[in-house]
Amino acid sequence: MEQNDLELMLDQLKNALERDDLAAAANIIEAMRPADQAEVFAELDNEQQSLLLPEIAPADSADILEELDDEQVAELIATLSTDEIIRIVDQMEPDEAADLLGDITPAQAEAVLSRLEDPDEVRPLLLHADESAGGLMTTEYLALRRRMTAAEAIEAIRRWHPSEETIYYLFVVDQFGRLSGVLNLRRLIVANPAARIMEIMEPEAISVAADVDQEEAARIMTRYDLLALPVVDENGILLGVITFDDVIDVLEEEATEDIQRLGGAQPLERAYLDTSPVIITRKRMGWLLLLFITATLTGSVMRIYQEDLQTVVALAIFIPLLIGTGGNAGAQTTTVIIRALATGDVEPGDALRVWWQEARVGLLLGLGMALVAFLRAITWEPSAALALTVAVSILALVLWATGVGSLLPLVASRLGIDPALVSGPLMSTLVDATGLFIYFTIARLILRL
Amino acid sequence: MEQNDLELMLDQLKNALERDDLAAAANIIEAMRPADQAEVFAELDNEQQSLLLPEIAPADSADILEELDDEQVAELIATLSTDEIIRIVDQMEPDEAADLLGDITPAQAEAVLSRLEDPDEVRPLLLHADESAGGLMTTEYLALRRRMTAAEAIEAIRRWHPSEETIYYLFVVDQFGRLSGVLNLRRLIVANPAARIMEIMEPEAISVAADVDQEEAARIMTRYDLLALPVVDENGILLGVITFDDVIDVLEEEATEDIQRLGGAQPLERAYLDTSPVIITRKRMGWLLLLFITATLTGSVMRIYQEDLQTVVALAIFIPLLIGTGGNAGAQTTTVIIRALATGDVEPGDALRVWWQEARVGLLLGLGMALVAFLRAITWEPSAALALTVAVSILALVLWATGVGSLLPLVASRLGIDPALVSGPLMSTLVDATGLFIYFTIARLILRL
Repeated sequence: MEQNDLELMLDQLKNALERDDLAAAANIIEAMRPADQAEVFAELDNEQQSLLLPEIAPADSADILEELDDEQVAELIATLSTDEIIRIVDQMEPDEAADLLGDITPAQAEAVLSRLEDPDEVRPLLLHADESAGGLMTTEYLALRRRMTAAEAIEAIRRWHPSEETIYYLFVVDQFGRLSGVLNLRRLIVANPAARIMEIMEPEAISVAADVDQEEAARIMTRYDLLALPVVDENGILLGVITFDDVIDVLEEEATEDIQRLGGAQPLERAYLDTSPVIITRKRMGWLLLLFITATLTGSVMRIYQEDLQTVVALAIFIPLLIGTGGNAGAQTTTVIIRALATGDVEPGDALRVWWQEARVGLLLGLGMALVAFLRAITWEPSAALALTVAVSILALVLWATGVGSLLPLVASRLGIDPALVSGPLMSTLVDATGLFIYFTIARLILRL
Repeated sequence: MEQNDLELMLDQLKNALERDDLAAAANIIEAMRPADQAEVFAELDNEQQSLLLPEIAPADSADILEELDDEQVAELIATLSTDEIIRIVDQMEPDEAADLLGDITPAQAEAVLSRLEDPDEVRPLLLHADESAGGLMTTEYLALRRRMTAAEAIEAIRRWHPSEETIYYLFVVDQFGRLSGVLNLRRLIVANPAARIMEIMEPEAISVAADVDQEEAARIMTRYDLLALPVVDENGILLGVITFDDVIDVLEEEATEDIQRLGGAQPLERAYLDTSPVIITRKRMGWLLLLFITATLTGSVMRIYQEDLQTVVALAIFIPLLIGTGGNAGAQTTTVIIRALATGDVEPGDALRVWWQEARVGLLLGLGMALVAFLRAITWEPSAALALTVAVSILALVLWATGVGSLLPLVASRLGIDPALVSGPLMSTLVDATGLFIYFTIARLILRL
């Protein structure tokens, strides 16, 4: 739906709510697509949301809750009665229902769970960590048996009423429930009705273990262009299926987290404009303080060389230029490496190749910048010695920054730390302090201070 | 396939090539999955690649070329004869074939095109810009007619042999070829065989125009969890279909580009380790130079206040700390806003709300940092006036940086410039120069210089 249409809908919805006409408001919501429903619903204030939600058909309420951020859902669900929660959760997909139950108190979750229509679909999903393949999978899939015929399989599909996402691949299990193949729906339709599933299936299905990280599962699905990825336990028994819609969400979420961390802030859990300034401040203050403390190192270095600065005040003029260039060169390197690690283009084991790549790039960049810096310096302060100091320093700094910038994320990754955490700001603050050492050392050598 | 298995395969492949046993090498490749084939193939040197490619079955060669980076494909295809190219392109999906033809000389492209088995599938795709919905779509889809019965539709599917990705949604057109609905395969199976397609289809299919940006098309598919998105012309006539595997690639590519731009480098066109240092240097040098020039502003500001620096050398010590904190606070803001713009959480029209959000965050962060900076300054230099100067400056700087950091990407976006371009580095260099003005102005007021 176009943005303008959505705003029109929102106006009509708010009008209906101001007239206290909850039925009309519910009708407006129910006529929309799930993603639009959630967007319009999220624009209402908390009080309006809790009033309206019980009036909306449970299937639509379920769609809306599936699309909203976890924190918003938790706030909203706290205002509903257990009966209302049950009506809605019964309409949710099992994986989304499990996520929701994980966000409310254990006692309430148990109360809801025990009275669901089909608690056995949801219960096993509660066992897995939120960010693992098991936490991402759904139990709503149709497992065909190896000895079924194509006609029997089609009949099984007719009797079964899945949600849209889960139909495109059909997984095949043996008598112990172990995954033994995969079949796409088109192949099933085209097959001879009397053919056995085991004859028409693809026997080598790609699968993942339940405790694999969700990002890893997403990478596998992207790599092999899979619409659905089966999740198995240590014995190869089929536990659930991850569908493509979840993968896109995981990839987007991980890219957002990486970008926010690169900017030196902890990732936000919900949409930016829906997050309170106090929470945003908390997410940023820690980093800002840590970087401040690292930056005081730079001050300490300057205090050591304070006498040199008093002798040649002009040295101070080039400090922002030098540490700026070092920081920028380092940031260019770190961001490229972090993204290459995230997309799998680079592995921690490639450290030596990466360093060699960056050493050559650093040399080229450093020589270019040194030339420019020399020309700039000599026109500012007519001292060849000072200009040479600046030029040599900038070459050394760029080489140093690209080296640190390339190895820091790889080391972090090898140590199991998210490389985006040792990101731009930390790297550039580190390069600032060490860069000043390099600058003053070169200055003392060349200017004989 | 596991990383270790891939390395094993690569070793076997290299052995076969050293023995000049091209047939054995081709067999090894042909037994793998497309993504693995491409990964292993990309590890060979250029000469080995051009020797091996003609020996691999055309269908597998096509898969490999579909997975490789554009530049690699262009280099490789230049070593093949037109006959060899035709054999491979005949096996490619039409959208990938069109991309490939766009990467070779127009004369050669025309020669290949005129001798393809089905040139009419590919030719219309050449009309659309690479980064548009039209450039992303494939013409390999099955359009059902409104008056067909379900049984006739299933028969049409049986007779048709599409590649895997294009089967999951079936699009319905009227007698003029205009898109009039969508049908999923399961619904078709479950339907009464005599039912007309127009009775069982979903009449409101979401579609996009061919000239819409590919990122916009990807956003729509993500938002509505679509496996396929029809592309129509201005009269609503169905031109092609975008499939989910292309969308994931677009989203990943756009996130990578944004991250690389945030780091202050032009995006690389191919995998990092496969790019030559000279190209990487070229992609970074422009920005580094531009930032250097902006940073000389900082030097110019310092020259203006050189006398003040000579009077109170201690002022210089706090410069890296101040501009560092300003730059970091600004970077935190910019990255969050840029990502929120990319995911659609924030629109350029939200400028006022964003600014108000950041003003409050900036005030909280600024007050916190001012307190810390005061304590740090007073323990370094026992001067309350200097400490007050530093504290007030840091508050002003953080407020200024969050303000600039929030508005810059929104203004860029409104002007149609990619917000990631006016990114971290440019923002922080700008904040550096203006921040020094603020610092020295406050210093003159408080220290009465």
